[in-house]
Amino acid sequence: MTGKVYIVGGGPGDPELITLKAIKIIKEADVILYDRLAPRELLEYAPKECERIYVGKERGRHTYTQEEINRLMLEKAKQGKKVVRLKGGDPYIFGRGEEECIYLMENGVECEVVPGISSILAASVYSGIPLTNRWISSSFAVVTGQEAEEKDRKRVRIADIAANVDTLVILMGTKMLPSIVDELRKVLDGDTPLAIVINASKPNQRTIITRLADAEKQYGDIEPPAVIIVGEVVKLRDKLWHID
Amino acid sequence: MTGKVYIVGGGPGDPELITLKAIKIIKEADVILYDRLAPRELLEYAPKECERIYVGKERGRHTYTQEEINRLMLEKAKQGKKVVRLKGGDPYIFGRGEEECIYLMENGVECEVVPGISSILAASVYSGIPLTNRWISSSFAVVTGQEAEEKDRKRVRIADIAANVDTLVILMGTKMLPSIVDELRKVLDGDTPLAIVINASKPNQRTIITRLADAEKQYGDIEPPAVIIVGEVVKLRDKLWHID
Repeated sequence: MTGKVYIVGGGPGDPELITLKAIKIIKEADVILYDRLAPRELLEYAPKECERIYVGKERGRHTYTQEEINRLMLEKAKQGKKVVRLKGGDPYIFGRGEEECIYLMENGVECEVVPGISSILAASVYSGIPLTNRWISSSFAVVTGQEAEEKDRKRVRIADIAANVDTLVILMGTKMLPSIVDELRKVLDGDTPLAIVINASKPNQRTIITRLADAEKQYGDIEPPAVIIVGEVVKLRDKLWHID
Repeated sequence: MTGKVYIVGGGPGDPELITLKAIKIIKEADVILYDRLAPRELLEYAPKECERIYVGKERGRHTYTQEEINRLMLEKAKQGKKVVRLKGGDPYIFGRGEEECIYLMENGVECEVVPGISSILAASVYSGIPLTNRWISSSFAVVTGQEAEEKDRKRVRIADIAANVDTLVILMGTKMLPSIVDELRKVLDGDTPLAIVINASKPNQRTIITRLADAEKQYGDIEPPAVIIVGEVVKLRDKLWHID
């Protein structure tokens, strides 16, 4: 009898930002494959005998490729096990959950996906910067600052996107900050507020507020995971609750 | 002694898609003000003696204005009560949570915000349509189809946004579907896939798959709440797990 794989969004970091549905599934897991950004505290919900496999990237440890992770999930499920693939954030927002689900289903394994609080939502709430507001933001866009190397051409035209939405959110943008800022300056005023939210929702959350003209000065002082928010909404932070 | 207001994201509809943090707060509430789209099942976590106030819009019932809701929260908090403002989805994504938090803080009341699973995330996962994918979507934008009437001019240039992102998500777009589709056709091919996810994550979820050229034929057959997803990612649904 074949098992089943649950691809579960583990939320942004604060272990209380996990859904009831995710907890129920983890409590019955035979195997958990977890990422670097999945909150470790969530493993405590698993049964004692549950096998825990770390598949994130970490210096001095074997790094699992996406293919190896896929094959490992498949193998465990074929053994009849209830497999939980625990990810940070939400599986379908830059989480590759869809790649894993497609692979499993093509190989005859049942799969279910559980949404999670994306770091986008957590960065917004816990830094006091709403993505929308009736008066100043009716649209937002989310882009990755780090595109897949396998792609033949850059898809994200960040300046064109920024020119047309009220609020821009950039994930995985710390490494490329200087070139992102260069691009944005082509279409946005140097005074446009920009926030960098590091470790959103965690005790070590740190929010840097700057403006586009000064943003690259922060380079070197920021480390992932970080969410960058650009737009007038950043100004609302002074009036809103936030944790840092 | 003044109380405190918790502005809590209640998630998209499935009552299991609520965070542990939200449940803990509801369990200690003295008063809950809840919206039409907040899952009713969540009220069951509240203590017996907790006052439950429905502030959503419904035919034949008094409709609370935003100002009345604000004043009611303030009044209850000033009485020293622990007030929960329970919303559908996430408070900071078209949820007006920031308006309420600003009002409360300006009036000297402590406030805390809890993120929730946005209907965007739920529509994506439960219809089998990821918002991003390494190969076909590195960016997405979220817009409202229904702008605040108070605004002096339209802010959302939906065609310009659609022309520049890989995936477009439209919330509150059912009423304006024909004019939205008209706009989108100016920049996107008629064959561009379009999905309408109604009642995302709920037992009565219904997903309509069409293409831009045929989309307005669905008008009349759809009722809110619905999430519209436009782009190549819609095609992945055939290969992915979904509930409808």
